[in-house]
Amino acid sequence: MPRYRLTVEFDGTPFVGWQRQDNGPSVQGALEAAGEALTGAPAPVVGAGRTDAGVHALAMTAHIDLRKPFPARTVREALNAHLRPAPIAVLDAEEAEEGFHARFSCTGRSYLYRLLARRAPPALERERVWHVPIPLDEGAMAEGAKALIGRHDFTTFRSVHCQSRSPVKTLDEVRIERAGDEIRLHLAARSFLHNQVRSIAGTLERVGAGAWPPEAVGTALSAKDRAACGPVAPARGLYFAAARYDSSA
Amino acid sequence: MPRYRLTVEFDGTPFVGWQRQDNGPSVQGALEAAGEALTGAPAPVVGAGRTDAGVHALAMTAHIDLRKPFPARTVREALNAHLRPAPIAVLDAEEAEEGFHARFSCTGRSYLYRLLARRAPPALERERVWHVPIPLDEGAMAEGAKALIGRHDFTTFRSVHCQSRSPVKTLDEVRIERAGDEIRLHLAARSFLHNQVRSIAGTLERVGAGAWPPEAVGTALSAKDRAACGPVAPARGLYFAAARYDSSA
Repeated sequence: MPRYRLTVEFDGTPFVGWQRQDNGPSVQGALEAAGEALTGAPAPVVGAGRTDAGVHALAMTAHIDLRKPFPARTVREALNAHLRPAPIAVLDAEEAEEGFHARFSCTGRSYLYRLLARRAPPALERERVWHVPIPLDEGAMAEGAKALIGRHDFTTFRSVHCQSRSPVKTLDEVRIERAGDEIRLHLAARSFLHNQVRSIAGTLERVGAGAWPPEAVGTALSAKDRAACGPVAPARGLYFAAARYDSSA
Repeated sequence: MPRYRLTVEFDGTPFVGWQRQDNGPSVQGALEAAGEALTGAPAPVVGAGRTDAGVHALAMTAHIDLRKPFPARTVREALNAHLRPAPIAVLDAEEAEEGFHARFSCTGRSYLYRLLARRAPPALERERVWHVPIPLDEGAMAEGAKALIGRHDFTTFRSVHCQSRSPVKTLDEVRIERAGDEIRLHLAARSFLHNQVRSIAGTLERVGAGAWPPEAVGTALSAKDRAACGPVAPARGLYFAAARYDSSA
């Protein structure tokens, strides 16, 4: 079966998440249905990452296996036509290199987390940001985030439902940027634990609010205890930003 | 009646426009209902500009007259509470200076128009941008826009429903900016004709697409003929960006 590599943008609001599930519409399910509508045969889809309900993607990489070959441009156009009106857009499709696998070949993942720190609720970005009705000190957040960079046991920042064999991950980047009332967290790693980004975002929010001193982040990390984590930030502020594929992947 | 100056953000998608109308919900009507819920008396609202159905605002200035005085902070909080769940947010409220009128005191208005120029439809910004499925040359658009700067008879770029006494307006700025696949038009003037920004955006899109040479914009302007205008760009890409009040207004 010919395999295509897809770059996918989606609004996670109406979905139960990336992964196909019995309890509602999923992004993976919508892409597979679009592939099946094109070819008349099952069209399995695999993504670089799995996202929870309400989480968005700026550029998720996925692959889709089709029963027969089409020009890559046709794949993109046909999938977008069949996806309508779901808020999923195939930005790019190309023939996958031999052996390419969206999940197993992936060597880096990055996420964006958006917080809107102002008193008034968001009118335009309602399902796109976490509304925090108090000022946040992004300098303190950046100071606190430093403790997280590098290879650590991230048990504190891991969902109890996480299925990863090990809690040890290497966080390559936590960059914090302000744009007006908005604070943007940029995180990058080879891979993440379940809820790791939202757990970190919720903890750094406590630091930005002044409720936790910056050094409390390192203390929470060292505790290796889920109970030491700040509140988990809501899904609506989280975006799968990009997947990286190094070497001849 | 004490008057308050409001700064209002709204998502125009569910509204018939700014102005109260019989055929559906309006932003003005929602603000007046919120003011009446606070005071138990009619609470007339006037905005710096009137926007059409589907047009958004980043920061519309308005005033509201309340039957009795409240701390400005209470006005903002109470209006936001009563506005819920409408996608309207009062970003700021302050006691208006003596003689302040959101419309008549206004000395400058600015608009933002957002075009998304890429093949794939928008998934995240669906009701927030005009999707143009072809590449646009922003340099050509900027070149064409030059002819519009200054004082001109804008009959070409004016809705047939425009109620302005004169078609002569002074356009202070048309700035064109690219951010990835997005082209943003920034326009500023003391005041605008009905549909002027959308008429200009639709005409500049034709230039960006290569369908019109840049010099055709000046030719269209000189024609002083509505028929010489390009297509009117859709409401969803338009944002009332800011109102200016100079001097002691």
